[in-house]
Amino acid sequence: MKWMRFSHGGVAGFGVVEGDRVRRHEGDLFDRPTPTDTLIALAEVAWLPPCRPGKIVGLWNNFRAAADKNGWSTPAEPLYFLKSPDSATGHRRPIAVPSSYEGRVVYEGELAVVIGRQARDVAIEDAASFIFGYTCANDVTALELLHRDPSFPQWTRAKSFDGFAAFGPVIETDFDPATASLRTLVGGRERQNYALADMFFGPAELVSRLSRDMTFEAGDVIFCGTSLGVLPMKAGTTVDVVIDGIGTLSNVYG
Amino acid sequence: MKWMRFSHGGVAGFGVVEGDRVRRHEGDLFDRPTPTDTLIALAEVAWLPPCRPGKIVGLWNNFRAAADKNGWSTPAEPLYFLKSPDSATGHRRPIAVPSSYEGRVVYEGELAVVIGRQARDVAIEDAASFIFGYTCANDVTALELLHRDPSFPQWTRAKSFDGFAAFGPVIETDFDPATASLRTLVGGRERQNYALADMFFGPAELVSRLSRDMTFEAGDVIFCGTSLGVLPMKAGTTVDVVIDGIGTLSNVYG
Repeated sequence: MKWMRFSHGGVAGFGVVEGDRVRRHEGDLFDRPTPTDTLIALAEVAWLPPCRPGKIVGLWNNFRAAADKNGWSTPAEPLYFLKSPDSATGHRRPIAVPSSYEGRVVYEGELAVVIGRQARDVAIEDAASFIFGYTCANDVTALELLHRDPSFPQWTRAKSFDGFAAFGPVIETDFDPATASLRTLVGGRERQNYALADMFFGPAELVSRLSRDMTFEAGDVIFCGTSLGVLPMKAGTTVDVVIDGIGTLSNVYG
Repeated sequence: MKWMRFSHGGVAGFGVVEGDRVRRHEGDLFDRPTPTDTLIALAEVAWLPPCRPGKIVGLWNNFRAAADKNGWSTPAEPLYFLKSPDSATGHRRPIAVPSSYEGRVVYEGELAVVIGRQARDVAIEDAASFIFGYTCANDVTALELLHRDPSFPQWTRAKSFDGFAAFGPVIETDFDPATASLRTLVGGRERQNYALADMFFGPAELVSRLSRDMTFEAGDVIFCGTSLGVLPMKAGTTVDVVIDGIGTLSNVYG
């Protein structure tokens, strides 16, 4: 199933995509929501991020091809940071140019995991049952902030401007990342195309390992990291993150 | 006023401390809560974190004395990270030893700012009106994680184990950080004693500058960084963070 959140007539709602319409549901997305009889045309809604994460984790150096090309060591453990939950944005929402930063801003097309229930100290063989579904993500990054201060890499700040955590359009509950690829199109031109199986730490292992460090709640999101092909965006550029089986997340920068 | 949250008879509530009792309030702490007639003895409640932050920001290298002693450069801008909101804990709650990490764990006594309403791109002269109040914090840190991977400092992870963001006991709305000091007592022995005025970036400047990078919501918390005297904790140690005018945050580690 493809779950989405939307705004329609100024009212937020959520539901399941059925063809070119969404069936509105009531209750809690993560706790047996109930379908209603209301079907709304997708053409009439504004897309919202498909859930409201309490936290957004991002991975660094989680793809073999990128590590090989960039000369990065194989990570002994997942290397991660937090993005501000207020940086979340959805499909077809513009990603604003930061007003307090003037350097290059890059896209990073990524698979994201959506947690379905509280997860703490989860064994890897149980991890799948804590994953609600998967979505496409653009882990937008203010590149020149990262190492502007030589004493302190500013991962959180570079990743947390409003709109810098685009994800959607939907959460797909029936998806197998082991066999899928991700493509990122920039102005319609393919700039990333990589197999999700190339991760050092796949989704189940990430959920298991990270849940030993911190508790996760329903709706939390893990951005699984990106691979080769990251480039700066010019204002006005459209970036599409495409994962067959999930959909296309499309945002204009600026 | 001193605001607190508590659990009493298994029910969570919040209110204002009046002597050795708390007057329960209803509604939203940040949106004109209404007092009730219910007074509960503090001796009968369990303390909760005084608010539920959507995000917890922590500062690095924000005190002149610590920078001088450690040979750190004067920061050109606030250097910060995010702690998981699930790491929040309150007064008199134990801080658990992480199960997935075996190295040293240090206390860091800090002043924390509690945001009172949505803050975005706030001018420094307006910043005070976005500050709801102040509280004491222990920014607990798994020291040896920080630089265990030479390619990626793990600030978020080292700071985000459950319980590693202790703050409380109360949020004091009438407090002037410019003239106050903070002391940290470890097993009753004073280990930190520093003037809050020694910050490179004081509370108003932090709110202003950080709100240019990311939006803040009511209840978000900024840990303002620590100064000299940080040391590892042994299991069973009591750490008290004392700020005259606010109160004493007391937690047992382990």
